[in-house]
Amino acid sequence: MATETADSTADAAASETVTASVVGGTGFTGGELLRLLEGHPNLEISQATSRSAAGKSVGSKHPPLRGSDLRFSEPADLESVDVLFTATPHGVSMDQIDHFFEVADTVVDLSADFRLETEAQYDEWYDGHSAPEYLERAEYALPEINRDNLAGADLIAGGGCNATATILGLYPLFEHEILDGDEQIVVDVKVGSSEGGAGGGEASSHPERSGVVRPYAPTGHRHEAEIEQFLGTSVAFTCHAVDMIRGASATAHVFPSGPVSKGDLWKAYRGAYEDEPFVRMAAGGSGVYRYPEPKAVAGTNMAEVGFELDPSNKRIVVFSAIDNMMKGSAGQAVHAANIALGLEETAGLEFTGLHPVGAP
Amino acid sequence: MATETADSTADAAASETVTASVVGGTGFTGGELLRLLEGHPNLEISQATSRSAAGKSVGSKHPPLRGSDLRFSEPADLESVDVLFTATPHGVSMDQIDHFFEVADTVVDLSADFRLETEAQYDEWYDGHSAPEYLERAEYALPEINRDNLAGADLIAGGGCNATATILGLYPLFEHEILDGDEQIVVDVKVGSSEGGAGGGEASSHPERSGVVRPYAPTGHRHEAEIEQFLGTSVAFTCHAVDMIRGASATAHVFPSGPVSKGDLWKAYRGAYEDEPFVRMAAGGSGVYRYPEPKAVAGTNMAEVGFELDPSNKRIVVFSAIDNMMKGSAGQAVHAANIALGLEETAGLEFTGLHPVGAP
Amino acid sequence: MATETADSTADAAASETVTASVVGGTGFTGGELLRLLEGHPNLEISQATSRSAAGKSVGSKHPPLRGSDLRFSEPADLESVDVLFTATPHGVSMDQIDHFFEVADTVVDLSADFRLETEAQYDEWYDGHSAPEYLERAEYALPEINRDNLAGADLIAGGGCNATATILGLYPLFEHEILDGDEQIVVDVKVGSSEGGAGGGEASSHPERSGVVRPYAPTGHRHEAEIEQFLGTSVAFTCHAVDMIRGASATAHVFPSGPVSKGDLWKAYRGAYEDEPFVRMAAGGSGVYRYPEPKAVAGTNMAEVGFELDPSNKRIVVFSAIDNMMKGSAGQAVHAANIALGLEETAGLEFTGLHPVGAP
Amino acid sequence: MATETADSTADAAASETVTASVVGGTGFTGGELLRLLEGHPNLEISQATSRSAAGKSVGSKHPPLRGSDLRFSEPADLESVDVLFTATPHGVSMDQIDHFFEVADTVVDLSADFRLETEAQYDEWYDGHSAPEYLERAEYALPEINRDNLAGADLIAGGGCNATATILGLYPLFEHEILDGDEQIVVDVKVGSSEGGAGGGEASSHPERSGVVRPYAPTGHRHEAEIEQFLGTSVAFTCHAVDMIRGASATAHVFPSGPVSKGDLWKAYRGAYEDEPFVRMAAGGSGVYRYPEPKAVAGTNMAEVGFELDPSNKRIVVFSAIDNMMKGSAGQAVHAANIALGLEETAGLEFTGLHPVGAP
Repeated sequence: MATETADSTADAAASETVTASVVGGTGFTGGELLRLLEGHPNLEISQATSRSAAGKSVGSKHPPLRGSDLRFSEPADLESVDVLFTATPHGVSMDQIDHFFEVADTVVDLSADFRLETEAQYDEWYDGHSAPEYLERAEYALPEINRDNLAGADLIAGGGCNATATILGLYPLFEHEILDGDEQIVVDVKVGSSEGGAGGGEASSHPERSGVVRPYAPTGHRHEAEIEQFLGTSVAFTCHAVDMIRGASATAHVFPSGPVSKGDLWKAYRGAYEDEPFVRMAAGGSGVYRYPEPKAVAGTNMAEVGFELDPSNKRIVVFSAIDNMMKGSAGQAVHAANIALGLEETAGLEFTGLHPVGAP
Repeated sequence: MATETADSTADAAASETVTASVVGGTGFTGGELLRLLEGHPNLEISQATSRSAAGKSVGSKHPPLRGSDLRFSEPADLESVDVLFTATPHGVSMDQIDHFFEVADTVVDLSADFRLETEAQYDEWYDGHSAPEYLERAEYALPEINRDNLAGADLIAGGGCNATATILGLYPLFEHEILDGDEQIVVDVKVGSSEGGAGGGEASSHPERSGVVRPYAPTGHRHEAEIEQFLGTSVAFTCHAVDMIRGASATAHVFPSGPVSKGDLWKAYRGAYEDEPFVRMAAGGSGVYRYPEPKAVAGTNMAEVGFELDPSNKRIVVFSAIDNMMKGSAGQAVHAANIALGLEETAGLEFTGLHPVGAP
Repeated sequence: MATETADSTADAAASETVTASVVGGTGFTGGELLRLLEGHPNLEISQATSRSAAGKSVGSKHPPLRGSDLRFSEPADLESVDVLFTATPHGVSMDQIDHFFEVADTVVDLSADFRLETEAQYDEWYDGHSAPEYLERAEYALPEINRDNLAGADLIAGGGCNATATILGLYPLFEHEILDGDEQIVVDVKVGSSEGGAGGGEASSHPERSGVVRPYAPTGHRHEAEIEQFLGTSVAFTCHAVDMIRGASATAHVFPSGPVSKGDLWKAYRGAYEDEPFVRMAAGGSGVYRYPEPKAVAGTNMAEVGFELDPSNKRIVVFSAIDNMMKGSAGQAVHAANIALGLEETAGLEFTGLHPVGAP
Repeated sequence: MATETADSTADAAASETVTASVVGGTGFTGGELLRLLEGHPNLEISQATSRSAAGKSVGSKHPPLRGSDLRFSEPADLESVDVLFTATPHGVSMDQIDHFFEVADTVVDLSADFRLETEAQYDEWYDGHSAPEYLERAEYALPEINRDNLAGADLIAGGGCNATATILGLYPLFEHEILDGDEQIVVDVKVGSSEGGAGGGEASSHPERSGVVRPYAPTGHRHEAEIEQFLGTSVAFTCHAVDMIRGASATAHVFPSGPVSKGDLWKAYRGAYEDEPFVRMAAGGSGVYRYPEPKAVAGTNMAEVGFELDPSNKRIVVFSAIDNMMKGSAGQAVHAANIALGLEETAGLEFTGLHPVGAP
């Protein structure tokens, strides 16, 4: 039976409806936003833009939406709306942000264009920034570390999926001062093919991409900038592509300077997450699913976080798993928008996931 | 934004609550039932029984339910309830059906125990039947061919997943008299590994099962009995295991005796399904997903049906795709229960599916 | 220990060396040819041409060849050679066949350009033919049905992979007159993603292609022409893309007009294949692998063929499985070339395959 | 064309034949040994023992061997032989080692029973040792670090697959004194499902195992003992199960105390491996396969090793990839046996691998 939360959300729907459009609706992230908005009790889809597919039904690109009447609009035909979700390639939103705010009161950008706080960071990690005056205004979309600032925000910057998984795994260790920023941290991330987007190309073709454990971005991954910004320390970061579609799994190897017990860790993680609707702990126990796994959260906005303590070399191993399309992108964006707009936090994000499910 | 249907369903929840228990909660089908019941606006879970896991949380077996407080009960502790869903191995329900009706007003059985109409059929296809007096009382759970009889039914027999896919694909051809039962029909089904259940074993171990195209039940598959019962003709039926987890795809090759046009076919299929909430057509068109695919319906209660006409050898090729755990089992059961209980048909079954998604 | 055959082949290597080049070396089939030629005791690679990768090492495209010193040549720099293997897109070879014979004594073409016997067939199934005068000269590469004609042939036409699987499955039924050509035959083929070639594109991108059971070419597949040519009857033919890389599995449903016993079938298949080095029977028995499976022959030139008899509807179900890159393409081509050149038939094709192995 | 090496090996076959038996022939490793021995020019299979499958053909368990006449023997019927390969569960060989040496002159054990040098290590990492007097006699099978000692050895201990991948990746850094043993080293390994063996079980069933990124042995993995023994330092070691069948990929994150250049690294790795027949470098470059990948070595005895330098946090990232069944087990064992017996090192191990190939 649906929870009280869901009932009260449904009640809210009667009194409050917010219009929302998606810029860049044919990509994987855009499609995921459309799916979430179609099922959202308070947000009503106005438009989904696409240069390449204008005029076609959204179901022509995203099979689960085959039942929808919505058709893609030309970007030039974008109309006024309450909230604009922008799912365009990096660099597009910073060039069009003035226009976006002419159209909408609130902009939720899912690219990297507003994640970092200073122009200097964009100079270092990206190709500079064309609208640096907006950087201070933007709020990072991850509620677990930025909820207070998201309330009422009008420019929201969706976090990177690998950064999201990493930050959720490590944040409690900093918040509870088990780490102070001087420790060596190694983060090894495994990601699915949806992270590469809908484009295709030789490396992501099925014969070349299927069954891989493929190092990519072995050094210098741009998400390091976000992680450093929020944790206050740099991490040694490496990604591997593996054979799944949805999912990011981050394993962090941390070497605390002082003694740490399992009790200390449980205290830190419970303290950080016990009231969070979209983080759950998976740390040991019995059965098949003992630690965080992308399969266990596929299709959902849930993050799983867990840890193990290695006494032999004074190491904490922290695991975190998300669906990169949901908690790592579109789901996080809707969650942040719910907070910014004063809606029920979990509205539209209640799907609990499937079991069994493969290559999530 | 949620549809009117969903809103009115939520309204109904206030006035009407039905208690439901699941017998056999640790298997894949039992877990899927629990997931659906957890999100159902009108059904409230009372108990989930399990011999092997009594006392453990349902989330220990089914990761998406990790947030639930429910624990498995001993089968002997089954309490009175409005509706009982039984997800036990074939043969168990027929032995316990008297007891089930002592506990519940309505029984929805997901095994094969009440699918066939006569004791003779059970003698032919199974190992006989221990409670044949119930066979006439049972109603087959597939609403698209049996909706009228499901209203008010108190014993509902969930259909076999391969039979469901096949019947949904072929039924309109019989209903609209394009076929009369004398034609040659070949059905070639591809199914995922969840159909084998949670047990394991060498043939279903990952190294042996991954990447297969494996003929199984090349002849004599028991689902033939159901298909024959509802279509009125036997079919030449063969199954193949392929590398997916959820999903069944049936391809029927049909050789009508007289001339048939594409217009005739569209008329038959639209006539049969245009008002059905859980069947949609996918027959040609452009893009990646032109015909029915299990991926496109993974996690949902939707069936996709489509066809192509082969003029060179006077053949109709009919494709149908379902999620075997949903439309082929637990979803179908909830759909049928909704009808039997007078609830909104689509209650608890609104999830639209994911894109992209792999090995559904 | 290596068999006598392999030893005598190795002996032959000392006295006889044949030079061979590959036209179109960057594609999957071209790479497979290079791999086979590198390990062949009698054939010595001279050149591998590529428009796009000229100058690069063959290992840059085909990781297993990273140890090779060979670099791709410009097509214009093609030099004289004994045997030319052409692995170009359909239509290229027919345009260049005069030139190919200026360069080489023997041409083995892996495209569809010389598979059919008459210009009329190319008009019907393809876009006509630009060098019809060569059609009569070409010999179909499948030794099991055309060995005698391959000896001494100078133009060899590699068979289509789906046609090869189908013909190998059905041929004994015609040869032993269990079928006479008037029967209804349905062939349902499942193929891996390597069949689509190295190009990529949205439909073959990993997120869209992974986990599929996707009907393609539901009617009118061009391989029907080859099948009809060699079996003397048309078949109702449909293909499905499934989640594997290498492999084609054909299931044929056949309805003989008269009574047939399992003994008749064994006699027909044993008679056809007991002396064939690259066909083995898999028809029932115990264990995990009871019928033909692409996994069981992945990476090898072996075809598995098996059958089952369905007494209830007088049907023979015939299964056949090959590696589409080997027996369905490059392996078949080398086998045919061995015969044409008077070499040991199995030379260079001895690899027995792997167990376990996935998504072959 | 086959290389000179292969020719001379074939020549050797005439003059020298060694008999070999496999104890434990039904498991994955036992099957791989049988496959390699069948194709080996100098080793002739005498027996393959199996308690559960005695009397059955080896092809009944391992499809690629369906052409073989060999049948499994009862372990009690083991006959005298030159070389015995033992592929039994850990603990069996130490109990039977006296008997094995009664039967054979040379024993190659693929379990963990003779990998470690001292009884104390077995007390710490395993459940003690029942034949510690053999420990000093045993030689570790990895030729790249132990070739000289393998010549003439009569007890060879096959290395662990994860240890093999890790040692091959890190060894040059120690040998060339880029590391001295005081540095922090994190090793994150991804492995396929064949590592779990042929047994099955719920966690390794296809529905639960497919599509995973699953932490296992997050701390305390027994292969740490081997790594420490050969590198002289402990490593922080964590394994993840991913969706492939064959393959192990190790990523080591190393923090050298002093400055290191790419040139230094190339010098170290080229120095260590340029003459090795079964190690090749993959470090950057262009194309799809830039770093070591299990797919690129699937089915072969090759290891790929590569690295990247991360100047921002003074880190060396080292990648290594092997087929866990070959270089990580059976292939390594045959390689070591070749050396011990004075045969051509590469005999029986020439297969170069497939492209494309999936879930290796």
